[in-house]
Amino acid sequence: MHQNTFTQNPTKPVDVKDRSIGELIDAMTHTGFQGRKLAESVHAWNNMLHEKNLTIFMGLTGAMVPAGMRKIILYLIENRLIDCLVSTGANIFHDCHEALGMKHYVGSHKADDRVLFENGIDRIYDVFAIEKEFRDTDNLIADFVQKLDDRPYSSREFIYLLGKEIEQLGGNEDSIIVSAYRNNIPIFIPALCDSSIGIGLAIARRENCNLKIIDQIKDVDEITQIVEKSEKTGVIYIGGGVPKNFIQQTEIVSSIMGIEGGGHDYAIQYTTDVPHWGGLSGCTFDEAVSWGKISTSAKKVQVFVDATIALPIVSHALFEKTKYLKRT
Amino acid sequence: MHQNTFTQNPTKPVDVKDRSIGELIDAMTHTGFQGRKLAESVHAWNNMLHEKNLTIFMGLTGAMVPAGMRKIILYLIENRLIDCLVSTGANIFHDCHEALGMKHYVGSHKADDRVLFENGIDRIYDVFAIEKEFRDTDNLIADFVQKLDDRPYSSREFIYLLGKEIEQLGGNEDSIIVSAYRNNIPIFIPALCDSSIGIGLAIARRENCNLKIIDQIKDVDEITQIVEKSEKTGVIYIGGGVPKNFIQQTEIVSSIMGIEGGGHDYAIQYTTDVPHWGGLSGCTFDEAVSWGKISTSAKKVQVFVDATIALPIVSHALFEKTKYLKRT
Amino acid sequence: MHQNTFTQNPTKPVDVKDRSIGELIDAMTHTGFQGRKLAESVHAWNNMLHEKNLTIFMGLTGAMVPAGMRKIILYLIENRLIDCLVSTGANIFHDCHEALGMKHYVGSHKADDRVLFENGIDRIYDVFAIEKEFRDTDNLIADFVQKLDDRPYSSREFIYLLGKEIEQLGGNEDSIIVSAYRNNIPIFIPALCDSSIGIGLAIARRENCNLKIIDQIKDVDEITQIVEKSEKTGVIYIGGGVPKNFIQQTEIVSSIMGIEGGGHDYAIQYTTDVPHWGGLSGCTFDEAVSWGKISTSAKKVQVFVDATIALPIVSHALFEKTKYLKRT
Amino acid sequence: MHQNTFTQNPTKPVDVKDRSIGELIDAMTHTGFQGRKLAESVHAWNNMLHEKNLTIFMGLTGAMVPAGMRKIILYLIENRLIDCLVSTGANIFHDCHEALGMKHYVGSHKADDRVLFENGIDRIYDVFAIEKEFRDTDNLIADFVQKLDDRPYSSREFIYLLGKEIEQLGGNEDSIIVSAYRNNIPIFIPALCDSSIGIGLAIARRENCNLKIIDQIKDVDEITQIVEKSEKTGVIYIGGGVPKNFIQQTEIVSSIMGIEGGGHDYAIQYTTDVPHWGGLSGCTFDEAVSWGKISTSAKKVQVFVDATIALPIVSHALFEKTKYLKRT
Ligand SMILES: NC(=O)c1ccc[n+]([C@@H]2O[C@H](COP(=O)([O-])OP(=O)(O)OC[C@H]3O[C@@H](n4cnc5c(N)ncnc54)[C@H](O)[C@@H]3O)[C@@H](O)[C@H]2O)c1
Ligand SMILES: NC(=O)c1ccc[n+]([C@@H]2O[C@H](COP(=O)([O-])OP(=O)(O)OC[C@H]3O[C@@H](n4cnc5c(N)ncnc54)[C@H](O)[C@@H]3O)[C@@H](O)[C@H]2O)c1
Repeated sequence: MHQNTFTQNPTKPVDVKDRSIGELIDAMTHTGFQGRKLAESVHAWNNMLHEKNLTIFMGLTGAMVPAGMRKIILYLIENRLIDCLVSTGANIFHDCHEALGMKHYVGSHKADDRVLFENGIDRIYDVFAIEKEFRDTDNLIADFVQKLDDRPYSSREFIYLLGKEIEQLGGNEDSIIVSAYRNNIPIFIPALCDSSIGIGLAIARRENCNLKIIDQIKDVDEITQIVEKSEKTGVIYIGGGVPKNFIQQTEIVSSIMGIEGGGHDYAIQYTTDVPHWGGLSGCTFDEAVSWGKISTSAKKVQVFVDATIALPIVSHALFEKTKYLKRT
Repeated sequence: MHQNTFTQNPTKPVDVKDRSIGELIDAMTHTGFQGRKLAESVHAWNNMLHEKNLTIFMGLTGAMVPAGMRKIILYLIENRLIDCLVSTGANIFHDCHEALGMKHYVGSHKADDRVLFENGIDRIYDVFAIEKEFRDTDNLIADFVQKLDDRPYSSREFIYLLGKEIEQLGGNEDSIIVSAYRNNIPIFIPALCDSSIGIGLAIARRENCNLKIIDQIKDVDEITQIVEKSEKTGVIYIGGGVPKNFIQQTEIVSSIMGIEGGGHDYAIQYTTDVPHWGGLSGCTFDEAVSWGKISTSAKKVQVFVDATIALPIVSHALFEKTKYLKRT
Repeated sequence: MHQNTFTQNPTKPVDVKDRSIGELIDAMTHTGFQGRKLAESVHAWNNMLHEKNLTIFMGLTGAMVPAGMRKIILYLIENRLIDCLVSTGANIFHDCHEALGMKHYVGSHKADDRVLFENGIDRIYDVFAIEKEFRDTDNLIADFVQKLDDRPYSSREFIYLLGKEIEQLGGNEDSIIVSAYRNNIPIFIPALCDSSIGIGLAIARRENCNLKIIDQIKDVDEITQIVEKSEKTGVIYIGGGVPKNFIQQTEIVSSIMGIEGGGHDYAIQYTTDVPHWGGLSGCTFDEAVSWGKISTSAKKVQVFVDATIALPIVSHALFEKTKYLKRT
Repeated sequence: MHQNTFTQNPTKPVDVKDRSIGELIDAMTHTGFQGRKLAESVHAWNNMLHEKNLTIFMGLTGAMVPAGMRKIILYLIENRLIDCLVSTGANIFHDCHEALGMKHYVGSHKADDRVLFENGIDRIYDVFAIEKEFRDTDNLIADFVQKLDDRPYSSREFIYLLGKEIEQLGGNEDSIIVSAYRNNIPIFIPALCDSSIGIGLAIARRENCNLKIIDQIKDVDEITQIVEKSEKTGVIYIGGGVPKNFIQQTEIVSSIMGIEGGGHDYAIQYTTDVPHWGGLSGCTFDEAVSWGKISTSAKKVQVFVDATIALPIVSHALFEKTKYLKRT
């Protein structure tokens, strides 16, 4: 090896001038640290979008909807920047809540929580919401559940029908769940009951003991089938948690089923977790290579950043770069 | 207010001398930062153990079993330092794996993952395992599932029966799942399918399409009933994730059901997450007060530390302090 | 207090559309978590720029220059978005290095460091540089030192003269140090010797034992005088470290000297550190209020983010918002 | 390579039983993640102590003295577990403060800082102190400075004389600075003026403009000479910051001076920083190998943990393991 193997590509300091978000991202490509990684993630995502027969899975965690990231997810769905969403229950619950006309509020992370409690205000870091309104949404979900058939549903089926219901209730168009319903983008929530949706389900169960069931095994089966039918797959994780592992493990499941996908072909993660605690949320995509979850030749970018910073920047940069793109 | 309101209690620098783990923890009580918090967590847990009619819930996340924390959890169960466990599927899967005589290995976080992949080695940060052996355990679980009845099970029921099965297979006594079965400590896994146990379930499903179902709504109902029957409750979180929220939300569910518990009475968390990303895992117990999940008067300690450091220290300190305690 | 005290200001989800960086920042003002904080920091900085008789101090840490942030600092200096810079030695050393025509290179954080060492490549996370070239710059600094008078210099004087020297050597115009020299913006480096500049100074010392001295007490005195002469002050920290505390403590020094400034009036920090370890770098501006370093009524924004993400975004947003501003 | 290359060494789950701190550390050696790293750090330090002709440098950052870690540092000095200390000014200032009979107090990180300010209380996360008393210590230092000769001092000389002064003032024996003075352990403070000691120096300067100077170049020279005279060197970092880099760079300085040490031979760090922000505090010892700061064959352990947890545990484990050791 020669020294100049390592010095092909000088950094180019970013200068400040009139330019667009996409142009700024391009400039950040020649810098270092997480600024560069953010830029690389945009390029990797953009490349995914230009691949043929590639299915893009997004894992969504963190309180992204309360934090105002809802219309960005909507944009990703409607413009087919993702093909399948795996989410926490919380994000979809909060989406229903806003779809039904209720709000989250700009609050403060320094508020006195006892005072908030007395005033019926729930706090999510620096965002507030009204407890009573949450209970209204809980009950609305419980009522909806009563109308379901007495049979097992995958979370995807459940969310599809809930999206339809919210649309019929006049839920506004900016809703993730309504838009996924209309665009036929599957949404999986593997830990559905760990959220206010689960609370709604539990209320319904106590009121009516029939067998409206969320069948999580069906979830594994359905998402694995999507992977099995895809020539290639790309994964994008907002945070980590259950959605990350749930998507990662599809490669193991299908390999055990005898369908060797060879691991996901692209992998992007925006996370605030770190590798050295050994958890799945923070682990590198290199570690995932050892398991066969990620292909040995995959393009992999892990960006350490709050997703409430990354999502606005990245979505606008992609908007600019993919204006005339029609994915197939 | 007078200045001396704030200066009642001078710090006492820790001196180095011959002393036990419990004595060191006592000394750390008069220091600052996370060292003091670690000590406070031991005192809070110890206090919980001396309360009458208090049920202790533990949420377990992170790859604690691969990292060698298995017998500590076992100790907590057998000596009734906890009354109910909510875990990720991964930890219980890895427990089964070791119970059946297989191992995890001391590895390196700097290993070349492509080489590991070629050699059939899976990496969890600096711990290794053998992929083929994992698949054996997957299949064993799939076989066990076939023997179940065609009806919905809560994850608690499922894990109880799996514990029984592992015992009958001669699974060793150091197993969390076997010991929980014997001691009748309920284990819930709300996102059961998000783990290799889920892989086993999915294999079984494809082989046999009958209705062996994991019913997560039943989980919510069952754990809420435990809370409702408890005079007081204490919660201890190793990490965060779904188990944390799942235990936290029991207070909301029972309040909606009309049984006002007033929030958990003690709360301890050992975590590497932080509050300012707005996620549920890192959020403070103060924030949880606004939601009514934690009582306004609860004793609350959040310690920012890798649980693989906290668990050995804390368990040994409690061992020392609770030697002659018989909980009722 | 009424519930609606807390619900005056609903969050507004960011929609994806054609807009500028400044407009995106404006949209992020109505979201949550660090995305909102980033937006608030832009507004606070912009407000500072519209204050009369306010002096803006910037503390600069982290390997910002190797990471390609050099021209952004240059922009801040030339357009007077800051009035005084306190830096680590490393950043100014790396600036001299690039000013003299040498480069940093886009590398990889996964490189094998033994191979790099054998090839004479130094790594800074994912940025590379050539060790031999660093030694050239070290020696150039040592030669420059030889020309100084045998008397104590504050680091500010030293850097001023070094800027002049680099300019005369034909150092390019994109240099922080050259531009600060030309624009008469003071640069302090309180821990000057803790960097390759210090290495140059130590080489010079061994070659020539006369008293060319860096007098850090003079630094404290000089920067305190700037504070004392300012009606108001604002502080902006990139990272933390010595520069943060050095600027913070000016308020204590001048208060002890009998000049009560009442604490800095604006405070912004972009940091990856956190409060709960008790260190100065991560501590909140609230904590600083207890010390009298920050005014009780100051506008304070702490953003948890890699500065290589924050600096490009924030500088371009400010560029847009302050186009026609002439600070006085 | 064969699979069994990777599976030589099974993890051994820690069981809970009656055992000492040193025995617990031994048990943690066979686990994973930061728990194992903590154990490995004890073994590496212990090995260092058994080497002949090895000089141990400790870098000390973070508010360790306010957090009650003072007597642990004292223990390390008195029992020669370290040979040279490089510290922030703050830690030594707080040590003087306690040596003179003043205190830090157990406080709360949730206190209202405006109320603290009104009551003259300074907060360091969850530790309190009395502002007026700090000013007394500042003035005491200013008075001491007046007695110095009008010549440049290295920070080491200065601290040595200050230790002597504190001893003469009857400063108690638990003091780091007094004990280092008595045991002739050099203490360097490269950024001396960035602390309340610097405030004392600045007060003295204004009162008396003569040339009592802290000569930081002399610091670089002196510490490099210690390295040059050592056959081998080991480094232990509590946190990072200037002390870490200052010790790291000694290898570069001496190499430029023609004395090739080949990099430090042992390296331990207890830190809460992480590598991926590119800063010096969080960077890995592997990165340092590329620079030649750490030997390619060095034993290197980086532990991600609050030092207020690590120091009590590690010091007691070493106490146990080195009882009969006489270092030479
Ligand atoms: N967050 C909520 O408001 C909330 C409310 C009710 C229920 N829950 C439930 O709790 C469980 C876990 O929720 P969670 O997603 O909040 O958990 P979490 O905090 O565990 O986050 C999951 C992962 O995402 C990362 N992350 C979190 N916030 C991030 C951010 N802003 N930017 C980048 N990465 C981020 C975390 O580091 C973690 O690795 C889910 O089942 C959810 O339904 C959450
Ligand atoms: N970094 C280098 O390449 C380098 C090289 C030689 C000498 N040094 C010396 O080491 C000392 C400390 O250097 P440092 O500034 O790298 O130390 P550092 O890593 O201690 O960083 C200082 C503070 O800034 C924060 N920080 C670091 N990188 C950040 C980022 N990307 N975004 C936001 N915040 C960030 C850290 O959390 C920390 O609080 C200085 O005296 C410097 O001269 C550094």
